[in-house]
Amino acid sequence: MCRFIYYLGDEISVADLVTRPENSLIHQSTHAKERPEPLNGDGFGLVWYVPDDPQPARFRSLTPAWSNANLAELARVTRSRCVMAHVRAATSGKFDVADDNCHPFRCGRFAFMHNGDIPAFSKIRRALMDGLSDPGFASVRGNTDSEHMFAIAMEHLRGHENDSSCELLAAALHATVMRVLELLDAHAPGTHAYLNLVLTDGQNAAACRFSTDQSYIDSLYINQGSRYRCDGAVCYMAEPNDSSRAVLISSEPLNEGPRWKSVPRNQVALVSSDGSVSFRELSACAAG
Amino acid sequence: MCRFIYYLGDEISVADLVTRPENSLIHQSTHAKERPEPLNGDGFGLVWYVPDDPQPARFRSLTPAWSNANLAELARVTRSRCVMAHVRAATSGKFDVADDNCHPFRCGRFAFMHNGDIPAFSKIRRALMDGLSDPGFASVRGNTDSEHMFAIAMEHLRGHENDSSCELLAAALHATVMRVLELLDAHAPGTHAYLNLVLTDGQNAAACRFSTDQSYIDSLYINQGSRYRCDGAVCYMAEPNDSSRAVLISSEPLNEGPRWKSVPRNQVALVSSDGSVSFRELSACAAG
Amino acid sequence: MCRFIYYLGDEISVADLVTRPENSLIHQSTHAKERPEPLNGDGFGLVWYVPDDPQPARFRSLTPAWSNANLAELARVTRSRCVMAHVRAATSGKFDVADDNCHPFRCGRFAFMHNGDIPAFSKIRRALMDGLSDPGFASVRGNTDSEHMFAIAMEHLRGHENDSSCELLAAALHATVMRVLELLDAHAPGTHAYLNLVLTDGQNAAACRFSTDQSYIDSLYINQGSRYRCDGAVCYMAEPNDSSRAVLISSEPLNEGPRWKSVPRNQVALVSSDGSVSFRELSACAAG
Amino acid sequence: MCRFIYYLGDEISVADLVTRPENSLIHQSTHAKERPEPLNGDGFGLVWYVPDDPQPARFRSLTPAWSNANLAELARVTRSRCVMAHVRAATSGKFDVADDNCHPFRCGRFAFMHNGDIPAFSKIRRALMDGLSDPGFASVRGNTDSEHMFAIAMEHLRGHENDSSCELLAAALHATVMRVLELLDAHAPGTHAYLNLVLTDGQNAAACRFSTDQSYIDSLYINQGSRYRCDGAVCYMAEPNDSSRAVLISSEPLNEGPRWKSVPRNQVALVSSDGSVSFRELSACAAG
Repeated sequence: MCRFIYYLGDEISVADLVTRPENSLIHQSTHAKERPEPLNGDGFGLVWYVPDDPQPARFRSLTPAWSNANLAELARVTRSRCVMAHVRAATSGKFDVADDNCHPFRCGRFAFMHNGDIPAFSKIRRALMDGLSDPGFASVRGNTDSEHMFAIAMEHLRGHENDSSCELLAAALHATVMRVLELLDAHAPGTHAYLNLVLTDGQNAAACRFSTDQSYIDSLYINQGSRYRCDGAVCYMAEPNDSSRAVLISSEPLNEGPRWKSVPRNQVALVSSDGSVSFRELSACAAG
Repeated sequence: MCRFIYYLGDEISVADLVTRPENSLIHQSTHAKERPEPLNGDGFGLVWYVPDDPQPARFRSLTPAWSNANLAELARVTRSRCVMAHVRAATSGKFDVADDNCHPFRCGRFAFMHNGDIPAFSKIRRALMDGLSDPGFASVRGNTDSEHMFAIAMEHLRGHENDSSCELLAAALHATVMRVLELLDAHAPGTHAYLNLVLTDGQNAAACRFSTDQSYIDSLYINQGSRYRCDGAVCYMAEPNDSSRAVLISSEPLNEGPRWKSVPRNQVALVSSDGSVSFRELSACAAG
Repeated sequence: MCRFIYYLGDEISVADLVTRPENSLIHQSTHAKERPEPLNGDGFGLVWYVPDDPQPARFRSLTPAWSNANLAELARVTRSRCVMAHVRAATSGKFDVADDNCHPFRCGRFAFMHNGDIPAFSKIRRALMDGLSDPGFASVRGNTDSEHMFAIAMEHLRGHENDSSCELLAAALHATVMRVLELLDAHAPGTHAYLNLVLTDGQNAAACRFSTDQSYIDSLYINQGSRYRCDGAVCYMAEPNDSSRAVLISSEPLNEGPRWKSVPRNQVALVSSDGSVSFRELSACAAG
Repeated sequence: MCRFIYYLGDEISVADLVTRPENSLIHQSTHAKERPEPLNGDGFGLVWYVPDDPQPARFRSLTPAWSNANLAELARVTRSRCVMAHVRAATSGKFDVADDNCHPFRCGRFAFMHNGDIPAFSKIRRALMDGLSDPGFASVRGNTDSEHMFAIAMEHLRGHENDSSCELLAAALHATVMRVLELLDAHAPGTHAYLNLVLTDGQNAAACRFSTDQSYIDSLYINQGSRYRCDGAVCYMAEPNDSSRAVLISSEPLNEGPRWKSVPRNQVALVSSDGSVSFRELSACAAG
């Protein structure tokens, strides 16, 4: 379940994502609008990229986002060109409320987050882990389906620590989704997967909105323009222009602005380091 | 704000209050039915009386009740004749989310909890503290209006550590409410007080449902019978009889049963150690 | 690393282990006497058996034991015939400070705790997990060597949920130690294992003191008598008699009393439900 | 009790205070060298000043510093010209382990921390609070002696939000110490005060080392030079020169370097925004 926000563009205040917008991350932690259950109170996480260090910083906590004074402080003083923010709903107690289960997950320069669920995850977990390389197997510290999917994605990124691209990220996401479907087919046929995922290297990103269930898919929006800012609680994305680009990908629109577009079902958005975005059918990604 | 449950009767499992009923304390922590805001996720507290020790035990935490594995465990194995359970909503950030701000509050054999708000509390706090005895002044460790009211109530209970009665408890509640009104009248005239309170010594209790605001009063229910039990999620209060008595006082009914009655506005319920209950206008309590 | 205490006998107050003795669990959390590093501040856990339910209760927290008010309260009011208490030192950051990493671990009626370390655990973890049954594989929620060892032990206890004995528990411990040695031999030859372990079903127990390192073994003591009690901070074990029996097994003596004996190196103590204790070379357990 | 570090100079990595030095804040949280009790595990706090906002950022937690992954992350990526870092020892349980009791305390642009104790604080607290202005009374959220002293200091800083200097800060510290002594004289004569304090506005600072007890005073060191840096775990303060200045004030030297000097007993160090430092007898500060 959960809600998340991804930003790539010129440097902004993290508060412009986490606390200031009308439907900020904090607001979504208690009153998410597009989930049947509006509460996302089982911990949160923040990843942001800094100058001069490829590994992003991470702040996470198993207490709720809305009452975490440290989160509000960090959001106030932190500026970044690339941010991931996530509030967690622990899927009806299936996974523990624990630091190690808080998204975003991180490995080297890469970071990953998930909104959704693999209801039959317990039936595929062992086969999934058996298929991982030794470093992949060792990397999993918590017990969420999400972190295990990140381990799959990382199998496709290892060796590309310095040459990643949105094509590569999209291919890794595609491979992850396909592997999950393959495992479900083998061990839990007929069960569904709800996989809204974002994967970034801090300069490029890929994000997919995917569900095998024709009757339900989690919401996912994208907002592109030249520049994103908040004046107090009024946030806006400026019209595209030639000199700068900004991209927001979010489970829900952060405000009432006109530029939010729904990501089409079962597509992946490829966000390149220049802020340009293209879409592709998820099944066509492997060619990337 | 908040939601609470009080029980007095023969020994029950704490799970029959906290986890088992359809509208258990845990359920009310995320989906309270009779508050405008259903979320009570800013910590919780449990007080229960044990044999052979007048001072009750307390367990509290600033993490949400719904995900606290220790709470579920304790509820499962703990049995008691007198229990207070409380989930907190931190009044829009006015007071900190902190252990010391989690109800029930406790002093010697007495325990106390509050559902409601004194919106102008910051204007009366200093005068309130000035009026306390030295032990009362020293007793306040957190910063909620609720704990300060308990300090007022305790001024009326000091010296009665061994001879308390529901009359005494009701008189202490009455004095507390009157003192708050007096302070508001002096320092914040025209502002309201929302004071649903429970005070117990482990054998008797007084509980009031009080609001100065004609347009709003928090809900409060009482349920009396001979015996309260849960079979799985089906909980019931048995018909009154001569040999045993049980009383539940709760912000919301715990189930769909027929025996829940709304406490009348601005009345105090006096629960005696034999389980009998009487009601009185709050303003008439002082005679008690 | 870590320090632990096990008690089996007639019902005692948990405070007689956790808070009252001169060298109580709380004291050992900051000033352990027989470890090079006296600090055990990375969480704690308590398991106690209750009447009428084979599954013991558990309370654990990732905050330090010495400042946890809930622990002090629970210790004060809880009485039990069989208790495990553990304070953790997180082995220099190798494993996370997390609830799921706090001992004792628990499965059905069985509970387990560890003081020690497998320095090369990362080299054997995958093979260890590969050898587990599906339920064993699924049971591991955290990432400590200790919890993985409990999963091995449970492989030998499954099917014996109702007929366990100290012989069975000792055989499970023996099999666990042997499996660890076998895995180290295969994947990390020449590295050591420090395995002070306690395994109980609430009525019987087995505890071993084991190290492959001739130059170091963690301390472990046993204290048998008829009755263990504290008067204030003065705790004593009464002389053995015919009518009652009590056994304490602890990383360190809880007091200066004369009855504490060091468990011999590489032996397992078998504690039966009548409180009698026998010792056996660890390698001879398999016959049990 | 406690240990603290203050830095003023050109921008450094917070890790150069918190994690990298041989005797870093993290190290002092478990192995403080110059306290009888080496453990400072009852929470921690970090305050750092940022460009373009006079109010500093704060991060604090009631969990121990050594195991807080968020602290290590923040230290890694945060750079600042002025930093306060503090690890707490909760004075034998006299005050709660709570966020609101974690130093540094903060008010507008000012921040404050304390190492020491007022053993008779409970005897002076009420008179101390009675003497505060309404905003001062309202500002106290926790229950430490330290936060109450900051409230006294702030009485002398209100109205100087934009024109503070090290003279002003020293005068506020002096007034605070004198007020405490006056209160002790009136309500707890013959008892001691241990007051190592730092007060800053982000550009200037005053720090005192004070004790009324001839037999004990907490350690306090100062280190001045042109530039402070760490290469890995090797940290050094460069020789003074004309172009830049850096000042460290710390309960204990962070390394073996030669430039650490003990602050003389009952003196206050005045650190000006250009990095120059002067010392004064505490009793002579009022003239400042």
